[in-house]
Amino acid sequence: MPLGVVGALFVHLRGTGRLYAQGVPRPQQLLTPGPTAVPPEVLSALAQPVIHHRSPDFAEVFALAQERLRAVFRTERDVLVFTSSGTGAFESAIVNLLSPGQRVLAVSQGEFGERWQAMARAFGCDVVPLAYAWGEAPSPDDLRTALAESGAQTVFLVHSETSTGVVCDLEQLLAVCAEADALSIVDAVSSLGAVPLETDAWGADVVVTGSQKALMTPPGLAFAAVSERAWVRAETATLPRFYWDWERQRRVQEKGSTPFTPATSTVVALTAALGLVLADGLEAAYARHRALGRACRAGIKAIGLELYSPDDDSAAVLTGALTPEGVDAVALRLALRDKHGITIAGGHGELVSRLFRIGHIGHVTVEQIAGAMTAIEVELAVVGADVEQGNAAPAALEAFGTVASA
Amino acid sequence: MPLGVVGALFVHLRGTGRLYAQGVPRPQQLLTPGPTAVPPEVLSALAQPVIHHRSPDFAEVFALAQERLRAVFRTERDVLVFTSSGTGAFESAIVNLLSPGQRVLAVSQGEFGERWQAMARAFGCDVVPLAYAWGEAPSPDDLRTALAESGAQTVFLVHSETSTGVVCDLEQLLAVCAEADALSIVDAVSSLGAVPLETDAWGADVVVTGSQKALMTPPGLAFAAVSERAWVRAETATLPRFYWDWERQRRVQEKGSTPFTPATSTVVALTAALGLVLADGLEAAYARHRALGRACRAGIKAIGLELYSPDDDSAAVLTGALTPEGVDAVALRLALRDKHGITIAGGHGELVSRLFRIGHIGHVTVEQIAGAMTAIEVELAVVGADVEQGNAAPAALEAFGTVASA
Repeated sequence: MPLGVVGALFVHLRGTGRLYAQGVPRPQQLLTPGPTAVPPEVLSALAQPVIHHRSPDFAEVFALAQERLRAVFRTERDVLVFTSSGTGAFESAIVNLLSPGQRVLAVSQGEFGERWQAMARAFGCDVVPLAYAWGEAPSPDDLRTALAESGAQTVFLVHSETSTGVVCDLEQLLAVCAEADALSIVDAVSSLGAVPLETDAWGADVVVTGSQKALMTPPGLAFAAVSERAWVRAETATLPRFYWDWERQRRVQEKGSTPFTPATSTVVALTAALGLVLADGLEAAYARHRALGRACRAGIKAIGLELYSPDDDSAAVLTGALTPEGVDAVALRLALRDKHGITIAGGHGELVSRLFRIGHIGHVTVEQIAGAMTAIEVELAVVGADVEQGNAAPAALEAFGTVASA
Repeated sequence: MPLGVVGALFVHLRGTGRLYAQGVPRPQQLLTPGPTAVPPEVLSALAQPVIHHRSPDFAEVFALAQERLRAVFRTERDVLVFTSSGTGAFESAIVNLLSPGQRVLAVSQGEFGERWQAMARAFGCDVVPLAYAWGEAPSPDDLRTALAESGAQTVFLVHSETSTGVVCDLEQLLAVCAEADALSIVDAVSSLGAVPLETDAWGADVVVTGSQKALMTPPGLAFAAVSERAWVRAETATLPRFYWDWERQRRVQEKGSTPFTPATSTVVALTAALGLVLADGLEAAYARHRALGRACRAGIKAIGLELYSPDDDSAAVLTGALTPEGVDAVALRLALRDKHGITIAGGHGELVSRLFRIGHIGHVTVEQIAGAMTAIEVELAVVGADVEQGNAAPAALEAFGTVASA
């Protein structure tokens, strides 16, 4: 197996403790639904000298980060910033908004929806699942019925289910929560910045995301936008909390820092990344993600493979597809990685041997998607699969169109 | 106020979303007890293209990071890696080892000891404090008595109290815990890698630290070394946990990743930084930190200021000193930052107007300490304080000696 980029970098580290590359490192393109590739401008910001979190330097960056977070979250309120993964920020919502034994309606349509159910159970909540098969999209009517039957005053929603590629109709689901006066906690980890999400206008109470998806920043930061109603609820929620305590977090953030040492370098990188996103505008980002999804679906279909993710413009975050019967998806992914320098994601559970997922959020071009399609064609032929050759890349480029390619 | 390094970098970000420096950014030296300055080799590793946490690339780096973490922790067991601050890793110890109502003896000699007490209370533990005045060091005899009287089976210890500069005699305190068969949870956030700490040989059950102190890595990662006895205790502890759950963490780490998306770029940087630390050896690091402490104390005394941190070689992490009566320490710190490009830390609570703290952990040279001493002399003269001029820098260099300067 050839040395990857990291292998080359670290091959000499072992003996000397120094960092030398062995020749030119092999590039590895990330076409994964997070962590995603990060623009060079953001890596450059990340590598600036470390700043101190109790200093005017940090306060200045943090204020700019807040301004930009409000813009991408489409909210007027400050956004809580945690040094953690997105899972940590979701946990913060649970421990600040719920009490032991309290009922919560947890809508799930894949791995992450199931994770939030397990998490709420771990904290002693009374979880009522509204569970769909993996790959299905939740329906507002089902939600209305489930809210009425359960009497739950809190709802978990997954905007983009990263395990399947399904992006739900969040606006409608939030409208149903509003009808029932139920507090909504939205997992927007892989959706925010990729597809439209109007935190304030749609009345979402809590929106959680991470740095490492459409926000084009390395992993290590997670965010929670919190409505006034959620702040009121937090006053009476009794689950124990300290690292995740929102009230302390808000108090210190108002002074330009965080209660506990934040990932300052990643905050600097985030600020640069959000500047790039907002320079082009969110509408341009949404259009680009939709077009990348179209390109990817066109390529997959031109190869003759079956789509696992939805075959419509909602699937703007990632494209899931199945290998031909008998062709191992894990081996395909390793071949893409080792022979072509392309990292894509796999499937979970029963689908591990057939499903692969191509992420197209963040810093991804249609030419990368086209290259991946060609590599998939080639590798499927190598293992003897009967698939078309040479059609997928042109199909991807054509489907992308020219409007969104500026 | 002149633009700091970040101000210069970001001045153009607002309009264009692009990252251009306005002239040469003003360097800002961090002489803080964390986050600390990071070597250029580590910043370079940090800025490598992002890698995916479920890939052989990450597994390769993570295995090397584990090898090096075991070496700096002086333990044979794998070290748990959390994407959080050190406070998060300490919280992980509480929620994995304790149950509601369980008694814990919390030794405190400053801000961080008090934080762990507040944290344990937030989780419903029965906290018995063994509290010292800020600046005092805990005594093994007191601990023996307190353990006998309280019957507590769990003890919190702070190795280096960052708010005061006191480094306790951890080996002796751990021996007392062993006598009483009490489980120890050690805050080693600012000590690990700076002063001797033998996790296995001294019988520490849990040792917690962060990436951003003596380990010369940006903030964003925290670590917990866990003894076999602590793993057994975790099986019966009933505090709720999910993000911090050690058992899930261990299971996934054994496969070369973490349960939730880790700060992959910071793990790469950590691996490079630990390589640098271990290339010179831990003994060299300890000697350098002791010598830097000696240099700093000699400088402070040459200026004629009162030391707040201990006046002996135990104070190898940071040096605290008091401004002359009537001279505002906050204004002194701002003058150092804005006029001299040197960031030092302040005091807390009652001491905010008099105390300043100079961190000398990680990537710090004696010449930086000498420069800071000169800047302090100059700025104290500016505000009319009657202090010696020109003596501190030579005193610092002389006290450092030559043995450790290689």
